[in-house]
Amino acid sequence: MLAFFRGFGPKTCRRSAALLWKRTQADSAGQRMDIRGIYPPIATPFTEKEDVDYQKLNDNLQKYAKIPFRGLVVQGSNGEYPYLMAEERVEVVRRVRQALPRDKLVIAGSGCESTMATVQMSEQMAQAGADAVLVVTPCFYRGRMDSRALIHHYTKVADSSPVPVVLYSVPANTGLDLPVDAVVTLSQHPNIVGIKDSGGDITRIALIIHKTSSEDFQVLAGSAGFLLAAYSVGAVGGVCALANVLGQQVCQLEELCLTGQWEAAKALQYRLIEPNIAVTRKFGVAALKQAMEWFGYHGGSCRFPLQPLSEADVRVLRQDFSSNGWL
Amino acid sequence: MLAFFRGFGPKTCRRSAALLWKRTQADSAGQRMDIRGIYPPIATPFTEKEDVDYQKLNDNLQKYAKIPFRGLVVQGSNGEYPYLMAEERVEVVRRVRQALPRDKLVIAGSGCESTMATVQMSEQMAQAGADAVLVVTPCFYRGRMDSRALIHHYTKVADSSPVPVVLYSVPANTGLDLPVDAVVTLSQHPNIVGIKDSGGDITRIALIIHKTSSEDFQVLAGSAGFLLAAYSVGAVGGVCALANVLGQQVCQLEELCLTGQWEAAKALQYRLIEPNIAVTRKFGVAALKQAMEWFGYHGGSCRFPLQPLSEADVRVLRQDFSSNGWL
Amino acid sequence: MLAFFRGFGPKTCRRSAALLWKRTQADSAGQRMDIRGIYPPIATPFTEKEDVDYQKLNDNLQKYAKIPFRGLVVQGSNGEYPYLMAEERVEVVRRVRQALPRDKLVIAGSGCESTMATVQMSEQMAQAGADAVLVVTPCFYRGRMDSRALIHHYTKVADSSPVPVVLYSVPANTGLDLPVDAVVTLSQHPNIVGIKDSGGDITRIALIIHKTSSEDFQVLAGSAGFLLAAYSVGAVGGVCALANVLGQQVCQLEELCLTGQWEAAKALQYRLIEPNIAVTRKFGVAALKQAMEWFGYHGGSCRFPLQPLSEADVRVLRQDFSSNGWL
Amino acid sequence: MLAFFRGFGPKTCRRSAALLWKRTQADSAGQRMDIRGIYPPIATPFTEKEDVDYQKLNDNLQKYAKIPFRGLVVQGSNGEYPYLMAEERVEVVRRVRQALPRDKLVIAGSGCESTMATVQMSEQMAQAGADAVLVVTPCFYRGRMDSRALIHHYTKVADSSPVPVVLYSVPANTGLDLPVDAVVTLSQHPNIVGIKDSGGDITRIALIIHKTSSEDFQVLAGSAGFLLAAYSVGAVGGVCALANVLGQQVCQLEELCLTGQWEAAKALQYRLIEPNIAVTRKFGVAALKQAMEWFGYHGGSCRFPLQPLSEADVRVLRQDFSSNGWL
Repeated sequence: MLAFFRGFGPKTCRRSAALLWKRTQADSAGQRMDIRGIYPPIATPFTEKEDVDYQKLNDNLQKYAKIPFRGLVVQGSNGEYPYLMAEERVEVVRRVRQALPRDKLVIAGSGCESTMATVQMSEQMAQAGADAVLVVTPCFYRGRMDSRALIHHYTKVADSSPVPVVLYSVPANTGLDLPVDAVVTLSQHPNIVGIKDSGGDITRIALIIHKTSSEDFQVLAGSAGFLLAAYSVGAVGGVCALANVLGQQVCQLEELCLTGQWEAAKALQYRLIEPNIAVTRKFGVAALKQAMEWFGYHGGSCRFPLQPLSEADVRVLRQDFSSNGWL
Repeated sequence: MLAFFRGFGPKTCRRSAALLWKRTQADSAGQRMDIRGIYPPIATPFTEKEDVDYQKLNDNLQKYAKIPFRGLVVQGSNGEYPYLMAEERVEVVRRVRQALPRDKLVIAGSGCESTMATVQMSEQMAQAGADAVLVVTPCFYRGRMDSRALIHHYTKVADSSPVPVVLYSVPANTGLDLPVDAVVTLSQHPNIVGIKDSGGDITRIALIIHKTSSEDFQVLAGSAGFLLAAYSVGAVGGVCALANVLGQQVCQLEELCLTGQWEAAKALQYRLIEPNIAVTRKFGVAALKQAMEWFGYHGGSCRFPLQPLSEADVRVLRQDFSSNGWL
Repeated sequence: MLAFFRGFGPKTCRRSAALLWKRTQADSAGQRMDIRGIYPPIATPFTEKEDVDYQKLNDNLQKYAKIPFRGLVVQGSNGEYPYLMAEERVEVVRRVRQALPRDKLVIAGSGCESTMATVQMSEQMAQAGADAVLVVTPCFYRGRMDSRALIHHYTKVADSSPVPVVLYSVPANTGLDLPVDAVVTLSQHPNIVGIKDSGGDITRIALIIHKTSSEDFQVLAGSAGFLLAAYSVGAVGGVCALANVLGQQVCQLEELCLTGQWEAAKALQYRLIEPNIAVTRKFGVAALKQAMEWFGYHGGSCRFPLQPLSEADVRVLRQDFSSNGWL
Repeated sequence: MLAFFRGFGPKTCRRSAALLWKRTQADSAGQRMDIRGIYPPIATPFTEKEDVDYQKLNDNLQKYAKIPFRGLVVQGSNGEYPYLMAEERVEVVRRVRQALPRDKLVIAGSGCESTMATVQMSEQMAQAGADAVLVVTPCFYRGRMDSRALIHHYTKVADSSPVPVVLYSVPANTGLDLPVDAVVTLSQHPNIVGIKDSGGDITRIALIIHKTSSEDFQVLAGSAGFLLAAYSVGAVGGVCALANVLGQQVCQLEELCLTGQWEAAKALQYRLIEPNIAVTRKFGVAALKQAMEWFGYHGGSCRFPLQPLSEADVRVLRQDFSSNGWL
């Protein structure tokens, strides 16, 4: 059971013994938890009555278990987490942890708008079996979410979280980027192990890696669209919506990058861009779920107000996959 | 108890008898509920431990009761509603309703990201005594929140809400404007009585009033900064953060507008702009709460991650009030 | 010939006697030039070969002369000034001045990206007969166009301009707003008489009027869409694209505002909003020119790369006029 | 003299024989002009009176000639081209062509707002000796600059230009991105050889390369900040402001990328990001010119309204170079 804790560290943190049970399992190397690899940010299937469909979720998990993912992200933006009640959020994580082999990491989205609620949710996620928590930037009062506020927020969460914290910047949804200077400061916290950066600004990603190089801080690309480029500047993995659909292929891209087969990587990367755009910024979660159906997974409908795709959109979506040779 | 339902209407809606109990109290005139007037979107005081401080809230309410407000908005953006747990949101509304004279309206913010949660919260708010609910645009998946999605969302909420619905567009926080065509469509719903528009685009506000003129649809300015201008184009009231601090003055501005004393209105309007900007987009909720302290109300700290103002910011804030003759 | 200089002032400016010839015509009251009233920012007709069509321009001017405009703005954004060569810009102003009765003001757009070129163009415009120059914010290096840069720019231009300067903020085209603090500073310059504000932020407009109230500084609304609201907070006129098409009506709206007939003003204002949006941000200059044709003026094509409207767009444009009773 | 025309193509274009003199020098392979390599977008030195300082320009050129640049870009955004008169723009290109060895390409910025002016300027640039022209997206009427307008614009320019055209997308200055579909369409034009993309969206860059792969279309990174990443996805060079200052180093980064030394490339790339940000989006052209002085080139002041850096900014700028080991 220790195996999946590669690294993860003994730097002194002031927090209660009760919360440290997981920490004690860290290996003796004194490094932070290793989160390298590819993760699909899994979708949440719903029944016709909009309840979470745990059976379908379980079916998907069985299939994902056979793909060389490092683990799963539960309740990233593609998991419709803002549409889940607090209890549902925790229960989904519990079910995923139960269904998944122990050698796969479960990184659970625990971000809420208030620091207090995020602290609490992070503890609940850890108790439900999350190996790490992914904490999105609070954003409703975005005009006030400067570095001071965000450093304070993440520090409080990381101070109390029983499991390591992964920062999460997704400006398309939140309307704000976690500032580089805040990331650099936070990278020094012993319980903050990395960042998922979904903005796609490769200069920023490279700068973060450069400025945190002394900190054993890990950067995950937040999309398959710039995965190769992110590897080229030092990222160590990706949390990619498209991996819900083309999981083997995203893992293959990782492999090509890690083994320096850049020409083959480039050819594969090209073919992933349009499908990736289609299931993210072009058509959103509904498209991701539609494409999952085509590739043998349960997708289904989103909770409202997210709408089903129009037929015209479905045709364009299909074209974005077929013109790149995937359908 | 019927008195505060001025208007409010019998247009046929398909909804369960159980939900209609309040409706039956509507008067016989067949009009929609009248929401004209000035409302402070009240702040939520917290204790040092960040719990809701109901005693301090109550003290504020006693003072607000003496100002000719039409009512209060509970859990607008200034109420830090995204930082309250679901139960807290309902409890605050219950306490406000209990403390407030019956002739004052309580409009309760019931917006959540999902349609399902918003429906549920609206019912709870009604049961807690809200006279109407204020429903902010869902925004996390803002790229998909087009007119189709938003019309669907608000229609579902209005179909089931036991009390009238007020639309709420606040792009500074949500990053999206409720499109004019969606507002026009929604204005035809018998249980949607108006909109709080906080964007400040006066052309848009005038266009909404023009395009909904056949629908008895009421527009409230979402800020004291453009209250006179909004009245000049046909708005019927305002939900103004600044009314938490300078409530008498905002009501006086209303009175001057309603009685056609435009020169005096203009002179007063001018003096409210800088204080208003200071407690909203310049410094946010923390500044509103600071200013409340200066004017005899309980403000106190925000929940984190909202930060206290720096001393330098407090000085600028004070200057924005004093240079306009308020301190 | 002195008549059209209402006001305009003797405050000391350091500039050569040669440039002061116009100044000496200012009346003895020591006030700044009075620019109150309504102005169409005239369109520039072109021949099929994309040359300026001075004959058609002249025809339009004969018609505009019969409308109670205060004057014309030549080479605002609707004049396609960025598409005119420097010589063309000056020649168009010269022709307009020659064709127009002397009691109508000619305000000429003289803004260029560099201070040097703007200074030179302002002098040429004055020599061509402009009564005042309208100076748009330079914007290519918008990231560096802070208050310091803009105050420097406008001060240099105003120091040397033989005729009064009107500031011009049009964020839809330039991507930047002239900051309020810069406007306040610049309002103290004796040769800067006002601002055309096309952004439509009525709070900002009211704040500018409030903060410059000691300076005899005149604010013109940059659009017919918020003309009534602008008057309600103290603006003294408007430069309105729609006045190229519905000139009498825009002047009538002015009259209703000035005489305090707010209800009638409101009814008229409502009917102008959609046509105004159609010829500005919805379809742009090509739509303005199309609508001009419907109302008896020469519009014609734009210079490329501005494209003619599609037939579908023309239908929508027509609807925006007809549904408001203008066609 | 033929040597520097690697490729460059004979596809039929309808244009006058007079303009085709350069074309006839293209080699027989039928390919398009090869523009691979690194280019500094050179700065324009000015005298104290803000005239172009040709002597200082010449001094810089002598130094640049010794660096393995493929050529120079004259009048990119860093050349302050919007601040140069039309005659100055041409004269600067002429002087650069005269001073530069024939084996270095001169790519001249010929973009103007109107199609007509851009056509004319492109011809003048070609006559002044430009090997290719770089055509920025027109942007003043950005709301109307859709794919239809931009395809029309670039097609007209490319149809008539005596030398190949390079597209230029620089959203930080223009507020618009040349849409991918427009780039793909334009890549089929025989006289359009590539694009300088300064937006830094690496997903977009990769997609453009993928979608134009059948067209021998060349993509140049518009900044040193994402040069490595751009190479990793198939770009063939860069137009990098920082190459004005650290030219050898940028060329070294190119070399490391081209020879597959990715680890060394990454280490070098990291050290270039902060200096690059400092001379571009953080402090702009004034900072570029300041840094040029430190590295032995003539920089000097910008034309107004661009302001000199404050002393505090100069200190930060120096720090951005020194902390990365360059000063």
